[in-house]
Order: sequence, then structure tokens, then C-alpha cells
Amino acid sequence: MPELFVEDGHITTPAGWRAATWACGIKYQARDDLALVVSDRPCSAAAVFTTNQVKAAPVRYDQALLARNAAGLRALVVNAGNANACTGADGAAAALAMARAAETALDLPVDTVFIMSTGTIGVPMPTAKLVSGITSAAAHLDATNGRAAARAIMTTDTKPKYAALRQTLPSGATFTLGGMAKGAGMIHPNMATLLSAVTTDAAISPAALDAALRSAVALSFNCISIDGDTSTNDTLLVLANGAAGNPLIEDLDTPDGAAFCAGLTTLCQHLAQAIVRDGEGATRFVTITVRGARDDADAKLAAMTIARSPLVKTALYGADPNWGRVLCAIGYSGATVDPERVVLLFGGMRVLEGGLPLPFDEQAASALLNVPEVTIDADLGLGDGVATVWTCDLGPEYITINAEYRT
Amino acid sequence: MPELFVEDGHITTPAGWRAATWACGIKYQARDDLALVVSDRPCSAAAVFTTNQVKAAPVRYDQALLARNAAGLRALVVNAGNANACTGADGAAAALAMARAAETALDLPVDTVFIMSTGTIGVPMPTAKLVSGITSAAAHLDATNGRAAARAIMTTDTKPKYAALRQTLPSGATFTLGGMAKGAGMIHPNMATLLSAVTTDAAISPAALDAALRSAVALSFNCISIDGDTSTNDTLLVLANGAAGNPLIEDLDTPDGAAFCAGLTTLCQHLAQAIVRDGEGATRFVTITVRGARDDADAKLAAMTIARSPLVKTALYGADPNWGRVLCAIGYSGATVDPERVVLLFGGMRVLEGGLPLPFDEQAASALLNVPEVTIDADLGLGDGVATVWTCDLGPEYITINAEYRT
Repeated sequence: MPELFVEDGHITTPAGWRAATWACGIKYQARDDLALVVSDRPCSAAAVFTTNQVKAAPVRYDQALLARNAAGLRALVVNAGNANACTGADGAAAALAMARAAETALDLPVDTVFIMSTGTIGVPMPTAKLVSGITSAAAHLDATNGRAAARAIMTTDTKPKYAALRQTLPSGATFTLGGMAKGAGMIHPNMATLLSAVTTDAAISPAALDAALRSAVALSFNCISIDGDTSTNDTLLVLANGAAGNPLIEDLDTPDGAAFCAGLTTLCQHLAQAIVRDGEGATRFVTITVRGARDDADAKLAAMTIARSPLVKTALYGADPNWGRVLCAIGYSGATVDPERVVLLFGGMRVLEGGLPLPFDEQAASALLNVPEVTIDADLGLGDGVATVWTCDLGPEYITINAEYRT
Repeated sequence: MPELFVEDGHITTPAGWRAATWACGIKYQARDDLALVVSDRPCSAAAVFTTNQVKAAPVRYDQALLARNAAGLRALVVNAGNANACTGADGAAAALAMARAAETALDLPVDTVFIMSTGTIGVPMPTAKLVSGITSAAAHLDATNGRAAARAIMTTDTKPKYAALRQTLPSGATFTLGGMAKGAGMIHPNMATLLSAVTTDAAISPAALDAALRSAVALSFNCISIDGDTSTNDTLLVLANGAAGNPLIEDLDTPDGAAFCAGLTTLCQHLAQAIVRDGEGATRFVTITVRGARDDADAKLAAMTIARSPLVKTALYGADPNWGRVLCAIGYSGATVDPERVVLLFGGMRVLEGGLPLPFDEQAASALLNVPEVTIDADLGLGDGVATVWTCDLGPEYITINAEYRT
């Protein structure tokens, strides 16, 4: 399937999309902290949200919004600096005001704007600043502002995360997907503390879009771990406006449906990996693949347990080929394991076989780990289950950042 | 119930127990790395082991041993420096040799010695050095050597961990419990990477001893977390030789049975807390109590999730009264939570109520956290479930130790 990342593409690369940013002064000074992303026509919408039982006001607002109107959204508004979480009834009012302000400024019907907030929790949202910023931003929409939008939603991120890819459907039309994300700390599966939005000009029904999103998330955002914590605001939204003019995709079990799903998965993997690469204090990007598990679920359990282990992650920081810690993590993961069948590789070098360490060259193995992109491969020797997950190492910088930053 | 820690008491404080140590040179130079603990009569025995599917050779040996002879053990032998894990058939032979060497040196029948190993994994055990050390140590048994035994089993521990307590049973006899433990990193519930042994002179049946141990562990060793990792060698053993001459305890639902169980729990809590206080790189000892949960299991789930959260632990290192991270951890713990009922206290100061932060004095709250012994209390406002767990903060020293130490 031909698929191609658009060079320097972003969330307003797909047809019919424009964005604007503004400096509302919610928390940060002298930088944009608001992003508006607007479609020129109604969109199918689908989203996944944090599984944390403590949900921020915008998450609660959006969940109700999608139940009312998943076929006619027009825009997304995001602010950074204040998460509008643990803010009670005033927070719910602020979330509503945020959506209504965007609808008014963009001259849209009610219930057409999706909202996201990220930043400090438990601090009242300065609604007047936010509404004023939304009104100002609405006058500056442009199709070239997608990169600025990705910058405006950053918190402790060190770089903006955005991408776009273009693909031709088997039925002939070309469609584009664009996206942005913010992450940094507190990243773990089940949509743990991150914001991401994907736009497309493909025509796809809300139900098919929802199925495609869930499939893509299982292979991307739910395959990353930075520190195992999950948060109050995590949201991933996809909006499809149909400007590409393709025949409406209503079923993923069609050539067009499968192609769309593959493209969305690829974009989501790219964005999820960008979040890991920018993990708080991370110095290495680690790809962990477990094969030979009893089934895919077992493979993912083992891979995610390796990815979460502080002992594995500190060893990776120190470029220590510590196969024992990886084997231990597999052993307590809950996946079915026969230690005497396990094979382990660091950076492609075989270090353990049949549960026993091989007489490998420690310095050579350490050199394979002392690089920015590291691989760990395990074969459990039991079945056909496979999973790949992505994580980062755990260095002292993570502690420096988190002992000081008030979430 | 009168119960009293014996000042500077240790594993050979109970009647009928002696110990010896030796420097085998297994890994460490110029320090004892072997401990023998011997009873002058046969003991009831009970143990709990790591739940990791990758089990070290001594763990496999002991599990089979207890199935054969839980009523007639006589001794324990422990080495530090080599875990005899991931060592294959040679490791199984080394474990057998370790037990047989102690039985021979002590002139005991076969199947009367329990074994434990801790240290590097995946390195062949130098069996000759070990056997020679056991033989030498056996000639130096003394009732005053319990503290030396606790020192001999240390690895990255910074101090030995031992204690004893003496208690009078309702039926009249006085009995003593003594214990030692080693821990440091890789500590988590379900007997994750620690060694501990408890001796007593109480008379108690193997079945009642097993039930008492399981009850004590649930309220002690399984209530601590340092980094969430679990290991190949964790073992907690209790041996009861009956030298106190009390009427045999065969049922915990008797006054004597309940008193023994309470004493064992108190000693195990003391040893478990000593492990947390000596957590790798720890600067604070943190007691987390969750009340008002739907049931005790929910309370423990919420408390352990707080205890495991790297974001909570780094905030504690920084003395940051970051209630948001604690509330988040409760929210994703899996325990039933209504955020609008949660009350949170740091060091006894109320910082959150009804899901909303209170206007507390940040500097005063930080001062309450900037101490060696910290408390976090949460009330979920839903029921009668209560649990207390113990953990430590996460500082840069943990990473320094673990990026360099080869487990």
C-alpha cells in the first residue's frame, strides 16, 4: 500500500482545514498557549479518553458532546497551562464557556466544537482570558498554521510533535491525514496523559472512524510507556471532513476501509513515538519486541512490563546489558513463560538462550545500548504472539524535572 | 496484648538457636558472605516465595523440600554475592550441594536444611568455596551471632536488618521471635526480591505456622513497594522449634494462636519497614493510609498504586505537596472512586476535600513533607475499607545505584 509522509506536514495539511494560535497568558508568558483547528465543513468525529476515574472537565464535556453530535463537529480548541481538572462546578462552566466562545467566534452552531485542556490541575481556569484569546484567534485562521498549533499546546514538551501523510485509496481518491500531539511525562497506555488530534479530508462514517481509531490506538498510543502514570486529561480525537471526495467509507473490512485504517495507524504510531522520544529526561528511544508468546495479548503484557520496569530503564540509561532484569520483568509480567525457552537480544546481539546467559562480550553489548535508538527483542518460544512497544530510559533528569514541576 | 521488642534482639535471640558466619569470597572480599542459623531441635517450617515465574535454583529446591519435610527442619544457610539464578542444571546441583554440605557439617539428616541465595544472577555458583565456607562456619555456632548473620546476607543494603520480640501467651508461657532481612532495591509485594528469615521458640504446628505467616505477610512484606520490580529469589522463611515449651498451637482461632499471629505480624512489619527505610537512594520513609474504601482490597489497591507512582515518589523527593499526582494515582488504581468524595492529607494537613484543592499554605505543606518520615492519608468516603502501606521517595541516587550495579 503506497503511503507517504508529507514533508513537514501537520494538522492543517489535509484539505479544508485551517488553524490559528494565540497567547492568552493563562500560565505561560510570551508564547502562544491556544490552538484553534477548524474545518470548512462538518466532520465525523471519534475519540478515546483517559481511563482515570478522575476526569477533567473538558473530558466530561467532550464525552457528552460526542454522544450528542459525532457526525457534525467543525472545530477543536486546545489550551495549555491549565488542565481544568479538579475544578468542580466552576470547571464545568469554564469548559462550556470555552466551547461556546469558539462556536460564537467561528459563527458555528452549538455542539460543534471539541475542547482540550492541559497544564496545572486544581487551579481555576481564567475563563475571561481564554474566551478573549479564542475570539482573537478566530480572526487569524490559516491553512499554514498547523505547526504553530502543535507548538501552542506544549507544556513540558521540548519540541512540537506533528506529522501528515498522504495516501491513495484502492478506489482511486487521494486522502491526507494530519496530526499533532503533546506528551512528555505521565505517559502510559490507555490514553494516559497526553493530548493528540488527527484531522483528515477522507470521507468516513462516525462508526467506521471510531472503529479505525480504536484499532490504531491499540497499536500506537497504547503501546508506549514513559513512567506508568496516567492522568486526568488524556484525549485523542480524530475528525474527518470528507473534502477528499472519496466514496464514504462505512466498513473497515473493505479495501478503502483497510487502507484508511492502516494510514491512521501509521500516523498514530509516528505521533506516539514522537511523545516517547520527548519523554521527560529520556536519552534513549527503546523499541521492545516480544515474539513467540502464547498469544498477542501475552506478548503485549510481557513487552509492556519490560517497558515499565524502573530497573530495566535505569540499566538502559547506564547502557548496562542487564539481561537479568529483562528476564525478571518477563517472569513477573503475568504472561505465560517457560524460562528455559526464552531467548533475549540487545541491539540484535543474542545474550540469553534457554534461560541461560550466553558468553557474550559485555563491552560490545554495552556499546550496542549506548546509542539513541535501542532495541530489545525477546522470543518466548511458546507460540505465535507478537507485540512491539516503545519506551525510553530513566535517567536523573526525569527526577529533576518531576521533583520540581507542579503538574 | 503485651508485646515487647527485645533491645538489640536478633535471629538467635529465641531459645535453642545459634548462628555462625564466614567469608567464603564468593563475590565480596574481606567480609562475611555466609550465614548459618541452626536450631538445637527439629522445627515446624513455613515459607512464602517469589511469584516470579523465573525462580532461582534455591527457591525451587526449598519448595520441594517443604513439601517433603515441613515438620523437621533444623537449619538455614544463606549466601550473599551469587543468587544462583538463571544457572540451569549446574545451579540445581549447586543448590543441592549447599544443602548437603550444611547437613554434613552439622551432622544432620538429609532434608533438614533450608537454603537461600542473593546476589548476581546468571553467574555459576562457586560451589567449592561455598561448601568450604559452610564447613568452616559450622564449627563456630553461637547464640550471639544473630547480628553478624544479618550483616553477612547484605548486598546493596547499607545496614543490617534484625529484630526480636518477646511476648507472653494467654496460656502463660513466654515465647520469643527473632528475624533478619535483606532488601534494598527491587522491592515490591508478593515477595519481590528480598530475603528474610524468622525464628521462634514457640511450639506451633506446620499448618498453623503457615497460616500465621500468610496472614503476617499480607500486612507487612506485601504492603511495601520500592520500585515495583519483583525478583527471582524472594523468600521469607519462619522456623519454630518449640523450645519455649508452650502447649502446641494448632489453630490460630485460639487465644494463643491469635497472640502468636499478632507477634509474627509485628515482627514482619518491623523487618519490612526496615527494608523500605534502606530503599536504594531513599531519603524519606512514607506511610500511606487509605480509609473509606469500598473494602480493604480496594483500599490496598489505591494505597499501593500511590506507593508505586514514580510521579508521586519524585514529588516526595522534592517535598512538593502535589495532591494532583496522588489523586491521579487513586483515579487509575482500579479501586472504586468518586473523586468528589476524596479527602487528602499530607503530614496530617488537609489539602483536598470533595475533589477540590483547599487553599492550604504550600510552604507549610512542603515543610511537612521535607522530613525523614512522611505520611499521606486519603479517605475515599465510600465504605469501611482501610489499608496502610509503606514506601520511600524516588531520588537521583536510585538511578545512580541502578544504572551501575549489575544485579
